[in-house]
Amino acid sequence: MNKLFVIVLFVSFGIFAFAQSDTLPDILTVIHSRKSVRNYTEELVSRTQLKVLVKAGMAAPTAMNKQPWFFVVIDDKEILSTLANKMMFGNMLNYASAAIVVCGDMRNVTDALPKFWVQDCSAATQNILLAAEGTGLGAVWIGVYPNKVAVKKVRKLLNLPKYIVPLNIISIGYPDGTDKPKDKWNENKVIWNKWE
Amino acid sequence: MNKLFVIVLFVSFGIFAFAQSDTLPDILTVIHSRKSVRNYTEELVSRTQLKVLVKAGMAAPTAMNKQPWFFVVIDDKEILSTLANKMMFGNMLNYASAAIVVCGDMRNVTDALPKFWVQDCSAATQNILLAAEGTGLGAVWIGVYPNKVAVKKVRKLLNLPKYIVPLNIISIGYPDGTDKPKDKWNENKVIWNKWE
Repeated sequence: MNKLFVIVLFVSFGIFAFAQSDTLPDILTVIHSRKSVRNYTEELVSRTQLKVLVKAGMAAPTAMNKQPWFFVVIDDKEILSTLANKMMFGNMLNYASAAIVVCGDMRNVTDALPKFWVQDCSAATQNILLAAEGTGLGAVWIGVYPNKVAVKKVRKLLNLPKYIVPLNIISIGYPDGTDKPKDKWNENKVIWNKWE
Repeated sequence: MNKLFVIVLFVSFGIFAFAQSDTLPDILTVIHSRKSVRNYTEELVSRTQLKVLVKAGMAAPTAMNKQPWFFVVIDDKEILSTLANKMMFGNMLNYASAAIVVCGDMRNVTDALPKFWVQDCSAATQNILLAAEGTGLGAVWIGVYPNKVAVKKVRKLLNLPKYIVPLNIISIGYPDGTDKPKDKWNENKVIWNKWE
């Protein structure tokens, strides 16, 4: 009977470990463990991994389902370094394995509709950041638009056509463990029903 | 020996089921199953559940860590109906159990910095939508800003001070199963390294 107990315990633990390792971390864990990762190891991120991130980006909602976006995925080290040197807050791109530039496509933005493209592309960006965290990568959002100088620099470097506006650069790599999430919960920023 | 096998199988299955039910859905599953949910059952969403969503919102990144946001959480049916009647695309609010109005706090927006608050609040909104999907709720993003008429209406209804700008209304309830996610993946919207 003792032997039986040990076998059951052993098999159960194995199955439990398998069930856990089988799944990616859950949504709330990822939302709260996501952090701005600016420090990376030298390990490279593959194109397959980057595609998982872009696919997550394109799953974001967009106003009137316009999907007014383009994603420039950079894994050329030379381009990453040039971006790092030209951007004011882009130093981490020197050490990043890759970057995704989330862009708005002005051909999908009509004057009839309020300009929701910034919101659409920001939602896509947040999806990418969460997908990175959830798949063991680290990422940080580097703001570009509406800083006109920054927009011009990125557009020139990446040879973007006039109708493509870079909203941000997401720097991506394997986290070296330095960066930690912030607890930003603040009950005073919640109002119930109506402002008094 | 046969008996031993049955016991091991039985216990293992129990442990496996426990390990699975113990966790919320994983991050990529939630990102891809999230949809705009406009059709709800009559089941009510509790304040505890709504707080989980707002906490997820406040975990989003913000430019220079300004956290320029406020969250008005509405579970008063009368206010929801008034919003539904006043907003052009707000009909679902008549049937929603609750709503979260994600707002920018202009006191945290300085002229020295480009206006990143729309992006910050959009990232927070996406976190809320994903947290809703992940915890079994359904939600939809109703755009307000930069539609001036809509901003004015929401501000008046919720008695918002001048420095608070409503970016959107997130309508929330238990999904009745009607709404399905869209597959928006489009390889033509991905550029590798540089525009040719």
